[in-house]
Amino acid sequence: MSHNTFGHLFRVTTWGESHGPAIGCVVDGVPPRIPLTEADIQPFLDRRRPGQSKFVTQRQEPDVVRILSGVMDGMTTGTPIALHIDNEDQRSRDYGEIKDRFRPGHADITYELKYGMRDYRGGGRSSARETAMRVAAGAIARKVLGAGVVLRGALVNIGGDAVDRNHWDWAEVERNAFWCPDPVAAARWEAMLLEARKAGSSLGAIIEIEATGVPPGLGAPIYAKLDADIAGALMGINAVKGVEIGDGFAAAALSGEGNADEMRMEPDGRVRFESNHAGGILGGISTGQPIVARFVVKPTSSILTPRRSVDRAGRDVEIVTKGRHDPCVGIRAVPVGEAMLACVLADHLLRHRAQNPDAPDVARLPRN
Amino acid sequence: MSHNTFGHLFRVTTWGESHGPAIGCVVDGVPPRIPLTEADIQPFLDRRRPGQSKFVTQRQEPDVVRILSGVMDGMTTGTPIALHIDNEDQRSRDYGEIKDRFRPGHADITYELKYGMRDYRGGGRSSARETAMRVAAGAIARKVLGAGVVLRGALVNIGGDAVDRNHWDWAEVERNAFWCPDPVAAARWEAMLLEARKAGSSLGAIIEIEATGVPPGLGAPIYAKLDADIAGALMGINAVKGVEIGDGFAAAALSGEGNADEMRMEPDGRVRFESNHAGGILGGISTGQPIVARFVVKPTSSILTPRRSVDRAGRDVEIVTKGRHDPCVGIRAVPVGEAMLACVLADHLLRHRAQNPDAPDVARLPRN
Amino acid sequence: MSHNTFGHLFRVTTWGESHGPAIGCVVDGVPPRIPLTEADIQPFLDRRRPGQSKFVTQRQEPDVVRILSGVMDGMTTGTPIALHIDNEDQRSRDYGEIKDRFRPGHADITYELKYGMRDYRGGGRSSARETAMRVAAGAIARKVLGAGVVLRGALVNIGGDAVDRNHWDWAEVERNAFWCPDPVAAARWEAMLLEARKAGSSLGAIIEIEATGVPPGLGAPIYAKLDADIAGALMGINAVKGVEIGDGFAAAALSGEGNADEMRMEPDGRVRFESNHAGGILGGISTGQPIVARFVVKPTSSILTPRRSVDRAGRDVEIVTKGRHDPCVGIRAVPVGEAMLACVLADHLLRHRAQNPDAPDVARLPRN
Amino acid sequence: MSHNTFGHLFRVTTWGESHGPAIGCVVDGVPPRIPLTEADIQPFLDRRRPGQSKFVTQRQEPDVVRILSGVMDGMTTGTPIALHIDNEDQRSRDYGEIKDRFRPGHADITYELKYGMRDYRGGGRSSARETAMRVAAGAIARKVLGAGVVLRGALVNIGGDAVDRNHWDWAEVERNAFWCPDPVAAARWEAMLLEARKAGSSLGAIIEIEATGVPPGLGAPIYAKLDADIAGALMGINAVKGVEIGDGFAAAALSGEGNADEMRMEPDGRVRFESNHAGGILGGISTGQPIVARFVVKPTSSILTPRRSVDRAGRDVEIVTKGRHDPCVGIRAVPVGEAMLACVLADHLLRHRAQNPDAPDVARLPRN
Repeated sequence: MSHNTFGHLFRVTTWGESHGPAIGCVVDGVPPRIPLTEADIQPFLDRRRPGQSKFVTQRQEPDVVRILSGVMDGMTTGTPIALHIDNEDQRSRDYGEIKDRFRPGHADITYELKYGMRDYRGGGRSSARETAMRVAAGAIARKVLGAGVVLRGALVNIGGDAVDRNHWDWAEVERNAFWCPDPVAAARWEAMLLEARKAGSSLGAIIEIEATGVPPGLGAPIYAKLDADIAGALMGINAVKGVEIGDGFAAAALSGEGNADEMRMEPDGRVRFESNHAGGILGGISTGQPIVARFVVKPTSSILTPRRSVDRAGRDVEIVTKGRHDPCVGIRAVPVGEAMLACVLADHLLRHRAQNPDAPDVARLPRN
Repeated sequence: MSHNTFGHLFRVTTWGESHGPAIGCVVDGVPPRIPLTEADIQPFLDRRRPGQSKFVTQRQEPDVVRILSGVMDGMTTGTPIALHIDNEDQRSRDYGEIKDRFRPGHADITYELKYGMRDYRGGGRSSARETAMRVAAGAIARKVLGAGVVLRGALVNIGGDAVDRNHWDWAEVERNAFWCPDPVAAARWEAMLLEARKAGSSLGAIIEIEATGVPPGLGAPIYAKLDADIAGALMGINAVKGVEIGDGFAAAALSGEGNADEMRMEPDGRVRFESNHAGGILGGISTGQPIVARFVVKPTSSILTPRRSVDRAGRDVEIVTKGRHDPCVGIRAVPVGEAMLACVLADHLLRHRAQNPDAPDVARLPRN
Repeated sequence: MSHNTFGHLFRVTTWGESHGPAIGCVVDGVPPRIPLTEADIQPFLDRRRPGQSKFVTQRQEPDVVRILSGVMDGMTTGTPIALHIDNEDQRSRDYGEIKDRFRPGHADITYELKYGMRDYRGGGRSSARETAMRVAAGAIARKVLGAGVVLRGALVNIGGDAVDRNHWDWAEVERNAFWCPDPVAAARWEAMLLEARKAGSSLGAIIEIEATGVPPGLGAPIYAKLDADIAGALMGINAVKGVEIGDGFAAAALSGEGNADEMRMEPDGRVRFESNHAGGILGGISTGQPIVARFVVKPTSSILTPRRSVDRAGRDVEIVTKGRHDPCVGIRAVPVGEAMLACVLADHLLRHRAQNPDAPDVARLPRN
Repeated sequence: MSHNTFGHLFRVTTWGESHGPAIGCVVDGVPPRIPLTEADIQPFLDRRRPGQSKFVTQRQEPDVVRILSGVMDGMTTGTPIALHIDNEDQRSRDYGEIKDRFRPGHADITYELKYGMRDYRGGGRSSARETAMRVAAGAIARKVLGAGVVLRGALVNIGGDAVDRNHWDWAEVERNAFWCPDPVAAARWEAMLLEARKAGSSLGAIIEIEATGVPPGLGAPIYAKLDADIAGALMGINAVKGVEIGDGFAAAALSGEGNADEMRMEPDGRVRFESNHAGGILGGISTGQPIVARFVVKPTSSILTPRRSVDRAGRDVEIVTKGRHDPCVGIRAVPVGEAMLACVLADHLLRHRAQNPDAPDVARLPRN
């Protein structure tokens, strides 16, 4: 059972509410003698941090992470690693208005129906604040995967407006406020988001994440498929409504011929795939090609336009959400998606190694 | 860990290869004193069974299920229920050709890279044959959910050609060979599939599944979200490349206002949602509205057109797949998707009940 | 959750009732390319089988095991291995008497209180029949551990009468009906059991099991300690009421000096322990010394002497158990204990390997 | 997998080293709307705390617990509860001597062999310090169980010297430094421990714990037996070498008649057991009688007498452990044993409720 734990051998347990004293996580299963300090984690938290541009919530959270266990003299010891971030900017007063009313499209109502109460302060446990710990855990997952596995992500669509893949430039991603790989789209999005912000509205988005250097063989039939675990991991990010791998939903329109990723041998004995419709996963097991996944984030449900709702007492009301919110929560989901993919891959790497210690690191034939 | 086990409190462990002597599963966690006989399971297997029309593989499998444990005098006892289906029509000779060659787009190559060997007979463990046990387990999950929860599915797109939702008629689904809710689309698809079949090609498809009568409160933050578990369950079905809940990828193009499912009180104290963009799930927890999910199945990788590939010895080869195969494997995925959704819901119902025994069965306010 | 599943990476799920059509198990997580046929499993089942001497139940069960999946051409494939044994000698008529009455000291009453019903035929799921599948799974676990790990067990006490450890001879264990390592004790026990049998009574017993060749490092802090998992595994065998490791309860009377297993270096760099009070486990992790565990099996609760009890309707009754039963169920527990230890070790070997792939196979210093 | 997580539905994940900045745990699965504050937890920590008498280590740890999440306005919210205790008195300088040498009978050597390094400061993760979080989690488990379930423990044997059960007085347990229920034995033990302390030696001990008011039906066949989980939980406490339930190892000397817990009906429809050889558990399921378990704690391995050992470099050495240590670590294990039993029972209560929501709270017949 895993209400708040993610993974099996590489296990992440998070805790904390948006406006509690702190948030944290315990990362268990990390192999010993991996160099690790806060400096390996902090840059990823800084990438995710709100308040960095006018397009994300202005909440100011330094989000300084501390390692409280599992590391000695800058090396992991094999025991659980506890990470801790104090919540500094809590401003609970902003949220009094939503104490007894449920934002349409938000978890407010379902927490109330499930638990008979909820921590209304800043969304409590349902707040995107929890994702800071995913990003921190993802930084440790990257260390477990090693430098050969490279994870990165980009925003490929905001409000229905997609990037032009012919203009894709990974270097561009770090240059704009949207993790956008297409500078032309980035310019359009800036205008769209300024308008949405002014209107008190919000926009949806699609994120693409990619992992290169992943060994073949990760994932296992039938209920530990790598793609199934990636899908669960990404769908579990706040506000996500869809996930696809490789060609994804576009595969509906393909023929069997069009979908086939043909193979040729390289002189060095490696298998070369001539395309990657599969997104790096066949039969739930990694092929060694880049793993490519996309997920969609719905528009933020906290908006300034009044919406019809109900309250805890069972009365019809209207609700307007004031306070600091993201016009496009999808932007901040980019590093979270990367982190979740890293955690899934680290978990599967350990699982694969347990059962198949002599499996090759690259797609090589003959296998033995 | 769960290589071949699905679920936590309602747990399904499957075993068996396409061309082994039998396939089976163990369903653990079923509450006691639920009436159950083979007659509750067989009809769902019959719906999934190949050989029923010219549009699915002509392999003839009676697929007669036997209950070997966990039931006495037609009632569950609370102990594990073992289900068993003998494999009767194994014809291993058909598959000699693919013994040493890897079908592009198929799990052949990844099993080889992971395990250093594979059961090539009919796809072995990676065959869709395993899904018969999911369908059987799903029939038991329906009994756990009770008659108030209704699960059904439909094919909504083949080869890029979608149904017209204005023509949607659930009764139609049982009348054609495609689980198609739109009779006009069904006619078009028949032509498309005959052509694909003649060309030795295959087509992708999109399936939509729905559950009504689901109590609110199923699912739990943060890593046992109902939608995350549904996404993992559906992505884990053979050949699936994408999953979405409610509006899914279309949510990228929505505004916050457009995405809000507004609420009003009914006179009887129930919450009425005025739309269902969320697909019945908010914050990973069911709202009590219908749960709506879609998933895409890529075109069958076993096709008659020669494709470039490699063999076990590391040589470039061509491959053509003969034998009996589905021109659109997505058709048979409809009952499998329903079954997986049933299993996820049964699992979450038990989990929810453990922690929240006094939670209401419908979305009612005030909660207490 | 694991009602009927044991282990994490090496996972055993059993099913079946004493008088159902069959019993079986699914063994998941077995590495690929291990030679395995029914002939590797059957001898262990034959050792456990009832009906072999006059001191165990006369039920005649050939217990012929079949492998239904996960093996191809005599090699494991990495997919789940299903084992199946038909129940042939079911004689349900013997058990009509206990249909509505609860044997004191038996699971009859607790199944009734938990589930509101029970499969009374031969004890149903609570019957020792289920342990046949543990023995079968244990045979596979031995293959995973490899020939270097040797597991064996002996009965060291029946009815309070202990073996003399000065007479201990492992070869003797296979020569008598009691797995007794002391031929003098074996002769005494024969007389005791004949008397108990004649009196319709039963006796308790203590079993000792040992594993040599276990690599150091198996087990993990804090809640996956090797000794904790062994204790759970052995206490979970039918009728077991106590478990101890190494000196066990005798450690209460030791001083710190007396309990210390002092160490010296061997010329080849191995650590030699000069004693083994710890039973091969320190801090929950194996030392590389022999693992030694003992467990106590209470006397069979099915006896011919009338006992005071109650019935399903809530009335005071007397009960006498007729039918075939073991005067000392502890005898048959020896191969079951060995099997459970094998399963725990196989599970921990895979877990250890996942997190510590470069750990040494013997206790060697310096470690790096 | 559960390296550092205990339980399934009531889940406890602990982290922290003896001499790190803090220790903590995350308790997940707690039902919502249970009143909870630090004041519910602190008294149990105070009972366990070292430094309270001359018979336990003089390390001074105020051990002030803070709740960092999962509670709002004094009520649990259903989300994970993080507990945190700062380590204040770390004095690492005491432990320099054992940095490179392994204490015989201690986890030093096995951590080194497993991980290739270890946190030698105060025992790191293997220190009994971690048990403070078990006690804290146990306090929450008691709240989940409710006031009807009463857990208590006593020391029944030190150094081979047992209490006289005819003198048993639960009230006495709180009056002496040993949790001893027999004032005469307590006086003897005081002398024994003073002598052991003076000699720089240590003594073993046996603890008995009891839970009354436990509903029948907790535990599930076959691998989630209540007694198996209790055995694993108690064996997992530091330095424990044996566990028994009810009559335990004494059952070896019983006859079937002597072991039978006969039953009679009470006028109110309850089943009355006329004895409790079983210790409240039959077939792995609670009967409703008091649950009685015992476990043995070996003598502390840190002693002042020189012992032969080896060092990290693989050289023969002698070792003497200075610093603050318990002459009988078993004394402090009493509240830890109670806490572990509470955690197991809370976990099983939730599991039982999930599958059997209508099961009775007392042993009542007829069941329906």
